[in-house]
Amino acid sequence: MITQRLVENCLNTPFESIPADVVEHAKRCLLNWMGVAIGASRHSSVEAFISMKDELQSAEQVAIIGRPERADLLWATLINGTSSHVFDFDDTHLETLNHPTSVIAPVCFALGEYLNLSGQTILHAFILGIEADLRIGNSVSPSHYDAGWHITSTAGVFGAAIAAGILLDLGEDELIYALGIAGTQASGLLEMLGTMTKLFHPGKAGQNGLWASMLAARGIESSRRILESELGFASLYASESDLGRVNSDWGSTWELSKLAFKPYACGIVLHPIIDAFIELGGKVSGSDIDSVVITVNPYVTVLTDKANPTNGLEARYSVRHVAAIAFYDGDASVEQFSDARVFAPEITALIDRVSIVVDESMKEDQTAVRLVTTSGEVIGARVEHAVGSVDNPMSDEALIAKFRKLSSVFLGSGAVDALVDDLLHFDALATIHQLVAKSINN
Amino acid sequence: MITQRLVENCLNTPFESIPADVVEHAKRCLLNWMGVAIGASRHSSVEAFISMKDELQSAEQVAIIGRPERADLLWATLINGTSSHVFDFDDTHLETLNHPTSVIAPVCFALGEYLNLSGQTILHAFILGIEADLRIGNSVSPSHYDAGWHITSTAGVFGAAIAAGILLDLGEDELIYALGIAGTQASGLLEMLGTMTKLFHPGKAGQNGLWASMLAARGIESSRRILESELGFASLYASESDLGRVNSDWGSTWELSKLAFKPYACGIVLHPIIDAFIELGGKVSGSDIDSVVITVNPYVTVLTDKANPTNGLEARYSVRHVAAIAFYDGDASVEQFSDARVFAPEITALIDRVSIVVDESMKEDQTAVRLVTTSGEVIGARVEHAVGSVDNPMSDEALIAKFRKLSSVFLGSGAVDALVDDLLHFDALATIHQLVAKSINN
Repeated sequence: MITQRLVENCLNTPFESIPADVVEHAKRCLLNWMGVAIGASRHSSVEAFISMKDELQSAEQVAIIGRPERADLLWATLINGTSSHVFDFDDTHLETLNHPTSVIAPVCFALGEYLNLSGQTILHAFILGIEADLRIGNSVSPSHYDAGWHITSTAGVFGAAIAAGILLDLGEDELIYALGIAGTQASGLLEMLGTMTKLFHPGKAGQNGLWASMLAARGIESSRRILESELGFASLYASESDLGRVNSDWGSTWELSKLAFKPYACGIVLHPIIDAFIELGGKVSGSDIDSVVITVNPYVTVLTDKANPTNGLEARYSVRHVAAIAFYDGDASVEQFSDARVFAPEITALIDRVSIVVDESMKEDQTAVRLVTTSGEVIGARVEHAVGSVDNPMSDEALIAKFRKLSSVFLGSGAVDALVDDLLHFDALATIHQLVAKSINN
Repeated sequence: MITQRLVENCLNTPFESIPADVVEHAKRCLLNWMGVAIGASRHSSVEAFISMKDELQSAEQVAIIGRPERADLLWATLINGTSSHVFDFDDTHLETLNHPTSVIAPVCFALGEYLNLSGQTILHAFILGIEADLRIGNSVSPSHYDAGWHITSTAGVFGAAIAAGILLDLGEDELIYALGIAGTQASGLLEMLGTMTKLFHPGKAGQNGLWASMLAARGIESSRRILESELGFASLYASESDLGRVNSDWGSTWELSKLAFKPYACGIVLHPIIDAFIELGGKVSGSDIDSVVITVNPYVTVLTDKANPTNGLEARYSVRHVAAIAFYDGDASVEQFSDARVFAPEITALIDRVSIVVDESMKEDQTAVRLVTTSGEVIGARVEHAVGSVDNPMSDEALIAKFRKLSSVFLGSGAVDALVDDLLHFDALATIHQLVAKSINN
C-alpha cells in the first residue's frame, strides 16, 4: 500500500496545510531554477533539442525559457529541464544528491501556462511533486545511487508524474496508475556524468512523468504497486531500501526544506573544496606552491576523479581543476568551466601539484587542505560546512544576485527586476502568463 | 570495446553480405508485424495515444498503420509500436522472450516514409537493428529477464537506435553515442504484464531509440562504453552477463533467423498448452472432465499465473484461461481474449478443474497434460514442439492467413492482397509510399 498511501497523502494535502516556511523555500527553488535555466538557454545541448523539435514541427503551445521559440507541452518540458541542469547549478537534496526542481518545475510551468493556472495552484503541485520525488529517493538511498543510477531522473520521473497529475486533476486511481506508467520509464545512468547525455536526464524525466499523467488521464491502467511490488521500483533499482520513508511523517517533515542552493556551477561535493581554495588564493601566490593535499569525502573521488579534463564539461568532474580555478579565480561559476579555462597554463600547472586523500569520516560539506610552499611553509584550510549546504545556506540576497548574473546575459535589467519580483510573490499570481513573457528572449 | 565493435560490425555489413534466407525471414517478420499492427489499430490503448498526439497537435509527417491519422516521426513510432504489441501476437526470440520487430519496424517505417527510402535500405537497417537488439539481449540473459526487466523494451531501445542510426546515415562516433543515449533510457518492468502499461513498452523503446539517433546526429556526445562500462547496461541491468555474445560470430550466425511467429495471441510460453488443449477438445466433451493437470516449464507460472482473470488483458496471463479457451474454441486468437469470453460459464467452470505442475526439465515449447474424465478415464496429450516454435514453425501460408484475418477487419480485400504482395517483395520496392498508403484505413 506504499504507492496508494503516497497518492492519498498528496491528494489530502491542500495548499493551506503546507507551512509558510515550506512555501517560502519552494519559491526560492523556483527563483534559483529559473535563473539557471535562462542562463543555460543557449547551450549547445539545448540547441540540439530546438533543432529536433523544429524538424518534428512541434506545435507552439508554451514558452521555452530564455528563448524566443515555443513548443508543445512535452518538448517544452524536455528543453526547459535540460537548460535547468546544464550548468550543474540546480538545487540539491544533500542526503541523496537529488536535484528535483530541474525535473519538476518545467512540468509545472508547461502545464501552468497551458491550463492558465494560478501561481498558488502551480506552487501546490510543485511542492507535492518535490516531496514525493525526494521521499522516494530517500527510500532507496544510498544503495540506488551507489549502484550507478542517476537519482535525479529515476526518482524524478515519479515526482513529475505527481506534479502533473495534481495539475491535471487526476483521481486517486489515475494518479496511482500515473506512478506505474512513470516507474516503468525510470532510467538514467551515472555512467553519463561528464558527457552531454547527462544534461538531458532531468528534462527527459520531467517529460516522461508528464507523459505518464497525460496517459493515465486517458484511461491507461497500470500496476497499483510500482514502488513496493516484488517486481517494482525498490526491488529492481536498489539492493537495500526502506519504503517506510516514502510516507513517514508526511505533513510534519518536509524534505523540500532541505534543498540547498549552489553558489558554484558544479557538483555539490566539490563545494567545500572551492571554499577552501578561494580562501587559500588570498594567502599565497600560485607560483609559490610546491604541493597540495586535499582530504575529501569518498563521493568526491567516485564522482569527480577526472584527472585531466579535456573540455569544460569534464572539468566539472575534476576535483583538481575545481581546486585550481577556485584558487586563481576566487569563484567557480559558468566561466570557470569554459573549454578555454581548462587549458590555461596556470590551471594545468597547479593540477599537477594536487593530490587527493579519501577519508570516510569527512562529511559531504567538509574538507581539509594542506598546502606546502616551495619554501617549506605549511598552510592549512578547513571547511566545516560549505557555502550552500544546509548548515551554511546561501542568503536570499546571494540567490537574487545569482539570478541576476545568470539571467542578465539574455534579458534586460527591467525584465530581470520584474521577474525576481514575480518569483518572490509567485503564490499571489493570478496566472503565470506575464511572468513567462518576461522570461523569454525575443 | 564491446559497444564500439558492435557499431563497427553494423557499419561493415552491407546489404549484399546478408544471406538470402536471412533477408527472406526479415520479410516474414514485417508481414507478421504489419498484420498484427493493423489488427490492433483501434485498441483503446492506441486511442489514448491518438488523443494525446491530437492534444499536442503533432505534425502529420508519416502514417499511423491501420488508421486515417498521421503523426510526427516520434508519435508514429510510439503508436505503431503499441499496435504491434497489443495482441501479444508479435514475433519472438524464444531463448530470451524478446519481441524485437514491434520495437524496430515502426522506427524503420517512420524514417523510411519520411526520408523517402527504398525497401532494401529500410530492410537493411531493420535487419541490423534486430540483430543488435537480440545479441544485446542474449548477453544479459537469463538473469536480466529473471530480475524483472522487460527485455523487449530494455534491449529494444538499442536496436531501435541502431536501425534509426543506419537510416540517418550516422558515422561511427555518432552511432556509438546514439547507443549511449539509448542506454540511459533503457527501461520497462515485467511488473506491468497484464496491465495496459505493458502494451506501450515496445513503442516507447522504439521512440526512445529513434530519439537517441536523432539527437546523436545533432552532436550530442555520450558514453562510448554503454554496454561494457562498470556503470553501464550489463552491470546495472543483469546480475550475470556474457558480453562476448554481442559480437561473436557476427555475420555467420544470425539471431534474426531464430525469430518465431505466433499462431496464438498470447505469450509464447502458453503455445504448447494451447496445442495440447485444441487436441483434447476433439477427444472429450467439456462436461465429462473431472480434472486436468498440466505440466509446464517454470516460466509458465512465473509469467502466466493469474488464477482468475477479470478482463481479456489479464486472461493473456492466465494459463488456465488459455487452456479452457483452446479446449472449447480450438483457437487462441484475438476473440478468445475478449472481456466477454473471460466470464463465459464453460470457461470459468473448466478453469476451476485445472491444476499446474512445474517441471524444470520441460522446455519452453513443451507440455504434458493429463485429463481425467468423470468416468475415470485418463486421456493424455503431449506436445514436443509447439506450433510457431523454431522446430515447428508456422508455414508461410499460415502466416499469410494470419495477416489476412487480422487486416481484413479494417482493409478491403484488394488492399490486403496488394499489401501481402508488397511485403513479400519488400526489398524490391523503390519507396514504401504505396505500401504505406494501402496499410491505412480512411
